[in-house]
Amino acid sequence: MQIVIVLFDRFTALDAVGPYQVLTSLPGAEVVFAAEHPGPIADEVGRLTLTAEAALADVSHPDVLLVPGGPGQHDQMHDGPLHEWLRAADQTTSWTTSVCTGSLILAAAGLLTGRRATSYWLALGHLEQYGAIPVAERVVFDEKYVTAAGVSSGIDMALTLAGRIAGDQTAQAIQLGIEYDPQPPYDAGSPDRAPAEIVTRLQSRSRILTGRPT
Amino acid sequence: MQIVIVLFDRFTALDAVGPYQVLTSLPGAEVVFAAEHPGPIADEVGRLTLTAEAALADVSHPDVLLVPGGPGQHDQMHDGPLHEWLRAADQTTSWTTSVCTGSLILAAAGLLTGRRATSYWLALGHLEQYGAIPVAERVVFDEKYVTAAGVSSGIDMALTLAGRIAGDQTAQAIQLGIEYDPQPPYDAGSPDRAPAEIVTRLQSRSRILTGRPT
Repeated sequence: MQIVIVLFDRFTALDAVGPYQVLTSLPGAEVVFAAEHPGPIADEVGRLTLTAEAALADVSHPDVLLVPGGPGQHDQMHDGPLHEWLRAADQTTSWTTSVCTGSLILAAAGLLTGRRATSYWLALGHLEQYGAIPVAERVVFDEKYVTAAGVSSGIDMALTLAGRIAGDQTAQAIQLGIEYDPQPPYDAGSPDRAPAEIVTRLQSRSRILTGRPT
Repeated sequence: MQIVIVLFDRFTALDAVGPYQVLTSLPGAEVVFAAEHPGPIADEVGRLTLTAEAALADVSHPDVLLVPGGPGQHDQMHDGPLHEWLRAADQTTSWTTSVCTGSLILAAAGLLTGRRATSYWLALGHLEQYGAIPVAERVVFDEKYVTAAGVSSGIDMALTLAGRIAGDQTAQAIQLGIEYDPQPPYDAGSPDRAPAEIVTRLQSRSRILTGRPT
């Protein structure tokens, strides 16, 4: 089972590495980080560099594909090699997935038209411009299309997906293997429960761009 | 504020990248991935490669140091360049931290003697051999020494630390920024609550090695 995680400049590291840590433990899984051009790819901060081992062109039939988000999503909204690859690869995937603003890229490539999907909380409304149906949930399944909300939600998405692929017992073993028993010190991880002034501050700073006027 | 995350061959990716994603958002933070020799460092699976931008020798006075765990921890238990660097850097850190079996490395370097500390659930008992006091909690503070339990717990540790460094509001904004509102699909992330047969299976497979007979 080949799992391709797409990388692009200024991706968000945890969007990619959270699901990687889960999915790489699936029996028979071969995870490949791939980009348009193989080589080192820097994250949004520029302080973390992951290596894309393969060119997208070299991994054209993944069983699972995953698109992370991050500020670099803006540069991936126009038709081009990534969208072409996504549309072609999607024809034979078992699961087409995203984390955070990665769902905007899937939607812009035309893969979420008429489908229920989620995204980063600050980006959720933008999905509609690309014909998707925004759903304010942490993990959304619509047939083989699986989208996760912001950044850390990729871990929940990947565990849920692991259960669908390999059964509950295997997914539970993976959860125990990464000791995923979350105990956040605050209850501020959702705009519904974070202090209002913090929600407003993040909204005012947000620069989520879709390439179309909103 | 310089934050050095130590890399070594066969580290666990999420141990390093979870805290990175949190700590890199601290105001004034400069996170540096560093290893004995700079360059690409492969994780435990060999499918993920992070770049160590600096040699340990080039970052001798970090404000925060973080040691991840992973199967490669076994090769870092003997005295040598990493232990020497840890002991020297620790003299001027504000916070000396670890995730997962990274605490075994800190302990083997002599930095946790007589201190309360945690580790990966399968490794917790080994801390005692190195003079630390094992505590079965997700995040343990003992003065400036902060240890986290397995893999995903580094996110909780880093958010807690972010609150100590920059205040609750900043830490809450970071939590909302990474939408850390965990909703695991199973309640199997702790050996206390995972199905007993899964706990037993992981225990029987465990090969946590400390370099000393147990």
